[in-house]
Amino acid sequence: MPRFKIPEITVERLSIYLRAIKKFDDDEIVPSQRLAEQVGTSDGQVRKDLAYFGEFGVPGQGYKAGELKGEISHILGLDRDQRIALVGVGKLGSALLAYPGFKSKELKIKAAFDNDPSKVGRTWEGVTIQDVKKIPEVISQKEIDIGIITTPAIVAQQVANKLVEGGVKGILNFAPTRIVPPAYVKLKNVDLAIQLEGLSYFLSQATP
Amino acid sequence: MPRFKIPEITVERLSIYLRAIKKFDDDEIVPSQRLAEQVGTSDGQVRKDLAYFGEFGVPGQGYKAGELKGEISHILGLDRDQRIALVGVGKLGSALLAYPGFKSKELKIKAAFDNDPSKVGRTWEGVTIQDVKKIPEVISQKEIDIGIITTPAIVAQQVANKLVEGGVKGILNFAPTRIVPPAYVKLKNVDLAIQLEGLSYFLSQATP
Repeated sequence: MPRFKIPEITVERLSIYLRAIKKFDDDEIVPSQRLAEQVGTSDGQVRKDLAYFGEFGVPGQGYKAGELKGEISHILGLDRDQRIALVGVGKLGSALLAYPGFKSKELKIKAAFDNDPSKVGRTWEGVTIQDVKKIPEVISQKEIDIGIITTPAIVAQQVANKLVEGGVKGILNFAPTRIVPPAYVKLKNVDLAIQLEGLSYFLSQATP
Repeated sequence: MPRFKIPEITVERLSIYLRAIKKFDDDEIVPSQRLAEQVGTSDGQVRKDLAYFGEFGVPGQGYKAGELKGEISHILGLDRDQRIALVGVGKLGSALLAYPGFKSKELKIKAAFDNDPSKVGRTWEGVTIQDVKKIPEVISQKEIDIGIITTPAIVAQQVANKLVEGGVKGILNFAPTRIVPPAYVKLKNVDLAIQLEGLSYFLSQATP
């Protein structure tokens, strides 16, 4: 499998294709049109996206569902466990701990931290909340790969530093502020208001 | 201002530019390089994105901060109020009601609904939770533009139907399922696990 830089938006669509293809039996042949319908995109888009990763369809017929699941899972790094920690068990943090997509076999939250003494020691969704002071130690011991930040903006950079000290390789930041990790740590910012503004844009186009 | 279809990813970046430019005084001239640094992209990307909407920089110098704020706000439809309702005041729903980005002057949650009798009638973050049975009536009365769905997957389509019945023009769906609104209603799905999988992809690229 060739590994090279592909657009972030294509990576997002791969996740969406994976959800769709999982609904088919492993030995079903799924035409690209059917996959496109399932995810609400075009036939050509599906073929273009999957072509980034080489040929793995049945020519003229479609993709073998089981094979495509395996390939996309491999591309996304979901064929090996990624160990995740979450910092900030407030409203959003506790919602994410309960979020079905963060409880898959491959992507699982293994540790959670908060600075509120009344939360430390409590177990939430199977994860015991620990003191933020222990972040570097626990991250290192449990070999955590990814840190999720759901703290208030004001402490987000400090928390990121502790996660990096512990050895995370990636950070998913939900705090509404910009954080700067070292260059070798991959950062993804999630700003939920951007989705809402995107919708606002489309509505304002529809009714000028 | 010309109105034509621009890529969804460009619309997302406009939101990010808007956040960055808001940090400057209205009469400051901001070179595209400085804006690019603020948001972690390239100079060329900034100019390309903004060129979609015509010329509004000071040639050879940059963008006048106040003007750029106004222009992007207008493009995103943020220069007029968009009225929002949220359905499903569980963990994620209550997190979103408290989310700073959903409490701006232009994008504000005006109504919230749940089917749990113990929640109905309670006020959360300044919004009184109403019974889901009242969705069409309240949406219509309050002239709600956008519905946010944070319910379990199993009832998401039913909730979408009620929102459409009430007259929403756009739906932001956080429920982990596919919903199908009529063609004249714009749908945006937010799948938080996709962000995590995107990070997983980049980590698996870094350490093959």
